[in-house]
Amino acid sequence: MSTGEFVLRRRVQFYETDVAGIVHFSWFFRYMEEAEHALWREAGLSIHPPGSEVGWPRVAASFDFKRALRFEDECDVHLRIVEITRKTIRYECIVRKAGEQIASGTMTIACVRKAPTMRAIDIPEEIVTRLRRWLT
Amino acid sequence: MSTGEFVLRRRVQFYETDVAGIVHFSWFFRYMEEAEHALWREAGLSIHPPGSEVGWPRVAASFDFKRALRFEDECDVHLRIVEITRKTIRYECIVRKAGEQIASGTMTIACVRKAPTMRAIDIPEEIVTRLRRWLT
Amino acid sequence: MSTGEFVLRRRVQFYETDVAGIVHFSWFFRYMEEAEHALWREAGLSIHPPGSEVGWPRVAASFDFKRALRFEDECDVHLRIVEITRKTIRYECIVRKAGEQIASGTMTIACVRKAPTMRAIDIPEEIVTRLRRWLT
Amino acid sequence: MSTGEFVLRRRVQFYETDVAGIVHFSWFFRYMEEAEHALWREAGLSIHPPGSEVGWPRVAASFDFKRALRFEDECDVHLRIVEITRKTIRYECIVRKAGEQIASGTMTIACVRKAPTMRAIDIPEEIVTRLRRWLT
Repeated sequence: MSTGEFVLRRRVQFYETDVAGIVHFSWFFRYMEEAEHALWREAGLSIHPPGSEVGWPRVAASFDFKRALRFEDECDVHLRIVEITRKTIRYECIVRKAGEQIASGTMTIACVRKAPTMRAIDIPEEIVTRLRRWLT
Repeated sequence: MSTGEFVLRRRVQFYETDVAGIVHFSWFFRYMEEAEHALWREAGLSIHPPGSEVGWPRVAASFDFKRALRFEDECDVHLRIVEITRKTIRYECIVRKAGEQIASGTMTIACVRKAPTMRAIDIPEEIVTRLRRWLT
Repeated sequence: MSTGEFVLRRRVQFYETDVAGIVHFSWFFRYMEEAEHALWREAGLSIHPPGSEVGWPRVAASFDFKRALRFEDECDVHLRIVEITRKTIRYECIVRKAGEQIASGTMTIACVRKAPTMRAIDIPEEIVTRLRRWLT
Repeated sequence: MSTGEFVLRRRVQFYETDVAGIVHFSWFFRYMEEAEHALWREAGLSIHPPGSEVGWPRVAASFDFKRALRFEDECDVHLRIVEITRKTIRYECIVRKAGEQIASGTMTIACVRKAPTMRAIDIPEEIVTRLRRWLT
């Protein structure tokens, strides 16, 4: 693991495969989000603490697929933070299997206050401080 | 359609299949719930209206599987209410393809007040009245 | 519907929502694929006919999210083909609710021969002919 | 862990929750299957080895739900085999959180030969031998 990178090891489940015999592409977005939430926990945070008034909707997400994953494959989801602005965080993600690159993705999330109506707010300072370790 | 029965026609989606080439069994529970919510809409109800203090957690669910469904198959999800008690509703469900039985299931839901802590309550009278049409 | 555009009307299901109260972002990729497969059916094709030796893995997919979808919302998934190369097809997708734009996405798929090992092949001429109607 | 029981520890993911704020009930069936496949791996087996002519469709599945699981909860999926017949295997499953019972389920699977047409066959002797350790 290079500095500033978070890695989630994950095994492909049966229900993630499709009739083409490979992991359905929609699952890579969930793998990326799983790694994000695990990174936040590693930082001592939860992206959705009970009763919180702050939320983190996804603003954009993308993946490029090079190779397929199959049932019971173990893969590593490498996640790093590439930008923190006042109101958004941007991640880059690489999924590898035995070192070989399977797919690469990006995801941008925004910080919002949920009530009375959802609107963008500045990211709380403590969150920036805690996440900075994975900013590269 | 026999009296009291609700039928949802539904096509199998690609992401519902698995590497065995058939619809993953977990999806039948979602098909049954989709039919339930469509039945409630037909009754002029929503099972989850915005801001509602009443919820409908599932208490039990089961399925027996006879045959498989495959990508792009069209199936009919037959749902009927077999019991309404003071606090619960019980459904029976049959999934058919071209008339042939694929699977049969059951589901029991309970009426709860969500706050301050979740607890079972009597089903509101208007809901019983509206759903009675599908009680067999 | 403008010329060359395919539109799939779709209602948000309960299991597509998450604890934030909105459709989980991974579902938009499935909505886009549902529209794709419906477009192919409209063209007299199946993207996965039984026993076919040709497959269509996703090479890239992205979405930008502007607004949220909620339980029981009806949305329209607008899909069009923006490029057909010898071996790939590229789509653009806009999800709307009551005319308002919710999200916009793109997806590129490749034509492959599955056996003995997966490799890119030219798209069969009949498929190009049938899909051309949605090329804009 | 009592003798013969397999336990899978698992954390609730964001995409497994629904607008009611809890894990959608369909996920418990996937949790049960995840534990099954992990048990098979522990036994030196795969339930779906590449190229295998033998398959394991689900014949029946059920769950009773007592309490809810929420985002980031850690739960333990306890699985044991309660019956092995010539052609079927039956499991019982209890999902616990911090020792407290959340839900209990059952699942029956059948051994089939996939081609030329799917038909039930005797479970291979080596599989029975390897799984017997979890039969209680």
